[in-house]
Amino acid sequence: MERSADDLTRPEFFDWFTDEHVRFSDTDMAGHVNNTGHAALIETARIRYAMELAERAGLPGAGALAFVRLEIDFRAELHWPARVRVGARVVRVGTSSFTAGIGVFEQDRCITTSHNVLVHLGDAGRPAPLPDAIRELLTAELRSGP
Amino acid sequence: MERSADDLTRPEFFDWFTDEHVRFSDTDMAGHVNNTGHAALIETARIRYAMELAERAGLPGAGALAFVRLEIDFRAELHWPARVRVGARVVRVGTSSFTAGIGVFEQDRCITTSHNVLVHLGDAGRPAPLPDAIRELLTAELRSGP
Amino acid sequence: MERSADDLTRPEFFDWFTDEHVRFSDTDMAGHVNNTGHAALIETARIRYAMELAERAGLPGAGALAFVRLEIDFRAELHWPARVRVGARVVRVGTSSFTAGIGVFEQDRCITTSHNVLVHLGDAGRPAPLPDAIRELLTAELRSGP
Amino acid sequence: MERSADDLTRPEFFDWFTDEHVRFSDTDMAGHVNNTGHAALIETARIRYAMELAERAGLPGAGALAFVRLEIDFRAELHWPARVRVGARVVRVGTSSFTAGIGVFEQDRCITTSHNVLVHLGDAGRPAPLPDAIRELLTAELRSGP
Repeated sequence: MERSADDLTRPEFFDWFTDEHVRFSDTDMAGHVNNTGHAALIETARIRYAMELAERAGLPGAGALAFVRLEIDFRAELHWPARVRVGARVVRVGTSSFTAGIGVFEQDRCITTSHNVLVHLGDAGRPAPLPDAIRELLTAELRSGP
Repeated sequence: MERSADDLTRPEFFDWFTDEHVRFSDTDMAGHVNNTGHAALIETARIRYAMELAERAGLPGAGALAFVRLEIDFRAELHWPARVRVGARVVRVGTSSFTAGIGVFEQDRCITTSHNVLVHLGDAGRPAPLPDAIRELLTAELRSGP
Repeated sequence: MERSADDLTRPEFFDWFTDEHVRFSDTDMAGHVNNTGHAALIETARIRYAMELAERAGLPGAGALAFVRLEIDFRAELHWPARVRVGARVVRVGTSSFTAGIGVFEQDRCITTSHNVLVHLGDAGRPAPLPDAIRELLTAELRSGP
Repeated sequence: MERSADDLTRPEFFDWFTDEHVRFSDTDMAGHVNNTGHAALIETARIRYAMELAERAGLPGAGALAFVRLEIDFRAELHWPARVRVGARVVRVGTSSFTAGIGVFEQDRCITTSHNVLVHLGDAGRPAPLPDAIRELLTAELRSGP
């Protein structure tokens, strides 16, 4: 089961959000937020969301997860100053990895959507099946809500 | 009249604050917020505070101000995750320049203090006396509060 | 015609490179280069390569190109200090867009590979067919080399 | 003995340099390099220079040095693209701290000068006198050259 990138353009798709200020230093000479600024906003949501999931699953941390793939679709320009809310939700659960979907919104306008693939690493530092407790939680997140 | 750096370590010294999240990407391999992250937090406060002053003085923008000198005293380490509040206040008014004092606080713990010197540029792009309206406002800010 | 992500893992795939230093501020508290640092290295190559192509095609700039999609595969950790070389090459040419493939290498070790989709904007600021001069150049780049 | 900020505006003042590319993401919406970009260039030189000094003194690393104060004077605008060279040199040696002076140059044009205060931390994590070996080396650097 996997959600499409289009789902991520709608704020209603998300239950979990974080609010962030755009910073002046996020902008570049093109006059809008640089892609590294977008990546920083997405990362903040990805890590805080993953930590909350790990806590809910009774796991000590997100330390055994490696971030292996980032996709960002730039859908609208973002200018300074602005306050955005960044939504996160599980959009795919695999054997040893899962994908967090992220949407960044200024009011209801979608700025970027992003897929973030995280792999569970076993003792040898190589991909290993997701522990049952976390898989169940991820699957529940995937199926929940809109 | 000029306020000392020590004044800036006390949250009571400030009337104006902005709240900011520390971002994961603000940290570095030393395990705490990198100095570029501190500079970004300070800048956000400096520019928003200057824009609010310009608005209150009925001036169109802060465009004729050049940022010429930055001083940061690193007083305590800042770790992720954290929410900080950043205070700003005029601490010196000169002929063609003024200094904004900044203090960054996690709860009441002072993380950094900073002096930021801004110069008013005249038509030729060279330092020129501050306009009366802005000088009066800056002086009132300098004298106000604690 | 489109090149696979695996092609990008081999330095021999690229004719065009830029050399960059990793900066201390590119790292994060996990001890390696943060994804925003990787994005900055990739961007530097993307923009300089696009500008060189535009110059060779006799076009005034890359201003009419919008960056609409970024994909990064994180293949190996990158630590400070390091010097990397970043290769860029056209890997797909469409009607109104093309994709620049990027590979970041420390010596011959592939750190990241990246697909960067750029869309040509017409007068109304909407996607428009690539001009013939640029399309021919892009297609030659796509077919050239290894 | 302490060197003035003006000394740092002359490339001849420095024996030690590192070459760096300005990155597109170093710029901001004002069209030039943002102060966080300047801080990143200065930091790269500060840390690499300090590590080289520590190596020359036969010390294992720069780990026991805390960076406690940063001053930057912005003297000229820096635009993308550019290649800069960043010079570093000891400009003050105290009891438990020393100051690294930094100058950033585009060709021979001085962009920023910076004072960076580093404190030696003893076992309790509090300022402690500089070890003799490092003090001698720092003093030699201070007195050397132009």
